[in-house]
Amino acid sequence: MSSTTIHPENDMAPAASGGLADPAIDVPRGLKGVIAAETALGDVRGREGFYHYRQYSAVELAEHRRLDEVWHLFVEGDLPDAQQLATFRSRIAEVRATPLPASVVGALPTIAAAKGAGPLDGLRTAVSLLAAAEGFAPVLDLDTHTIVAQGLRIVASMPVLAAALYRAEHGLDVIEPDRSLDWATDYLRMITGATPPEAHARAVERYLVTTIDHGFNASTFTARVIASTGADLGAAITGAIGALSGPLHGGAPSRALDTLDAIGSVDRIDDWVRPRVESGEKMMGFGHAVYRTQDPRSELMHRTAVELGGDLVDFAEVVERRVVEILAELKPGRELYANVEFYAGVVMELAGLPREMFTPTFATSRAIGWVAHVVEQVHAGKIIRPSARYVGPPAPAPLP
Amino acid sequence: MSSTTIHPENDMAPAASGGLADPAIDVPRGLKGVIAAETALGDVRGREGFYHYRQYSAVELAEHRRLDEVWHLFVEGDLPDAQQLATFRSRIAEVRATPLPASVVGALPTIAAAKGAGPLDGLRTAVSLLAAAEGFAPVLDLDTHTIVAQGLRIVASMPVLAAALYRAEHGLDVIEPDRSLDWATDYLRMITGATPPEAHARAVERYLVTTIDHGFNASTFTARVIASTGADLGAAITGAIGALSGPLHGGAPSRALDTLDAIGSVDRIDDWVRPRVESGEKMMGFGHAVYRTQDPRSELMHRTAVELGGDLVDFAEVVERRVVEILAELKPGRELYANVEFYAGVVMELAGLPREMFTPTFATSRAIGWVAHVVEQVHAGKIIRPSARYVGPPAPAPLP
Repeated sequence: MSSTTIHPENDMAPAASGGLADPAIDVPRGLKGVIAAETALGDVRGREGFYHYRQYSAVELAEHRRLDEVWHLFVEGDLPDAQQLATFRSRIAEVRATPLPASVVGALPTIAAAKGAGPLDGLRTAVSLLAAAEGFAPVLDLDTHTIVAQGLRIVASMPVLAAALYRAEHGLDVIEPDRSLDWATDYLRMITGATPPEAHARAVERYLVTTIDHGFNASTFTARVIASTGADLGAAITGAIGALSGPLHGGAPSRALDTLDAIGSVDRIDDWVRPRVESGEKMMGFGHAVYRTQDPRSELMHRTAVELGGDLVDFAEVVERRVVEILAELKPGRELYANVEFYAGVVMELAGLPREMFTPTFATSRAIGWVAHVVEQVHAGKIIRPSARYVGPPAPAPLP
Repeated sequence: MSSTTIHPENDMAPAASGGLADPAIDVPRGLKGVIAAETALGDVRGREGFYHYRQYSAVELAEHRRLDEVWHLFVEGDLPDAQQLATFRSRIAEVRATPLPASVVGALPTIAAAKGAGPLDGLRTAVSLLAAAEGFAPVLDLDTHTIVAQGLRIVASMPVLAAALYRAEHGLDVIEPDRSLDWATDYLRMITGATPPEAHARAVERYLVTTIDHGFNASTFTARVIASTGADLGAAITGAIGALSGPLHGGAPSRALDTLDAIGSVDRIDDWVRPRVESGEKMMGFGHAVYRTQDPRSELMHRTAVELGGDLVDFAEVVERRVVEILAELKPGRELYANVEFYAGVVMELAGLPREMFTPTFATSRAIGWVAHVVEQVHAGKIIRPSARYVGPPAPAPLP
């Protein structure tokens, strides 16, 4: 175009109060409702209790399609036919079978040992290192084909990294991926050391499909902001993991289980729940800002838990019913139901996932969504950079 | 408040097309001009060629105040008096003298070796690891005092990490920080191995002060988005480093120097520049989207380069004048001047900084701004999460 250069903050947005040509546009706090991007990847329709990946119901996909089929839907834009699926599976298997760089493998014990703060910290560092070790160039300099290939590498590596960090942290031998196994089966195997029952793998797979994308959440937005600067895919995913680690975003699916543990038995539900609700305490696993119906993810996880069966499920169902009743009585009109955290926690517990792995597991599937959003953002081709309003003392003041 | 819980995406923004109560708010692409936050930290007034930190001219601060005074301005809200400065210096010295965690030190050679893609990749991984090793908790759970203390730790550590990564990458012994030295002096010493001349340290210090903050740039916005989820400070700064690594944001101050090298001599300026401008090629180091005047940072870096003196400065001045003339002739009305990249590169070169360290040096000072913005964001207390408009095929479609 012109003879000007892209250089530090060349493209910086005019400040709001600087008397520049561009007006300051006032919007709700937190950019709530502000359209920051267009996407063909999916949407959430809260009033209908419905969300979708491209044109398909996410819940239907989770019930009737395999994870790699849905992954293909995000990467290629549609569900694969038999031939496309075979090709995609073989491509993924090859990526998974490509050993991690020796530098990453060597650093995993150190990264695992440093994992002192949050369950996603280790994954954040490991993904950052992996992208650097593999020499990911800025997306600005890459064609879509290359970004997609890098995305497959990152997504395929994240379960391997998460499992390895878990094993390393607990002083266990790291287990190599087995390219002949599907994601969920191999993931559970790499964590626990044993090939899981088919039912466990399928339950976790459903959870993974369910959590690939969910509207324009904060981690997805973070990935798009970073990618919009032209930075490399590793920078975008590292930032997204960081955003997901925020308690206001990624939450902690293990907390609802902790609540079940604390209640302990059916006869203690009321005594445990009532005083807490009356004193305004939060009930982990209940309520959602968007869904005014049952959370469609929660319903699917509930069904999945029931299929797995067992005392924990029976107990969880009793607790759910009673808590919803108590909430309806004490918080009338709020329409508070179990959210995805409640039965997702039950499912993962029954499937043998350690609780500390619930959030990293969430990150591994959400990465499919992040990468797809990065690819979309690169095509959108415009840096995302709003303005701020200066509200400090008038400048310039003379130096004291 | 209520009995609902903070849980995964509880707070997720309604999707734009979902028929929810909140309207979809259309704004310019890339959120240009949209007010995403209020800040008392500073502003850019592009038409006036002016930017400020709190109420003070950033350029005046860079010329007349020390880096730690301006750091204090960002942390505490005002410039320190003599007593406050002594206290702050001693506090910083103590933080700097606190050894890095052994796990971080041990991982630096690996991180440095993996630094294959961009100059900020190593710093991104090292900061992520440092925050985890020090057990930074989510900002949501911390008081301001603790976040500020963590911010001092990260900011004080970044020059040490950047220098150590450089030394490790080049097979050189890592040099420990010397708490008796100021930031710029010690930074140059930790990189080059020799205590720099006072003039070099002061020139780099001016650059550092100049680059602490500059309006609501993409990395600052990224730090605020991540912090708004309640994530830990390490997540926010790691994400910000990632955004800064984007070619559309952080740029590469060494590129303008590469141009000077390519031109080589005064008699070759026209032959080198004219055909490139005429063919629409970018001239590294010239032009700015906001400033319609001289870039105030560029003017200060120009004066600083002249004070250092030497053939490179003389040559750069001739090139600058001639390029501006050629641009005025071939791109009339565009008002293209040298930007900050041009003379900042000259200053850092003269001060003995290796070119590959220009961008990491930028990141170390900008981190002061990032941390201050995170603290502001925590006080703002609202997750930043806009919406997207779904533009794919209508859903739900039946599964094929």
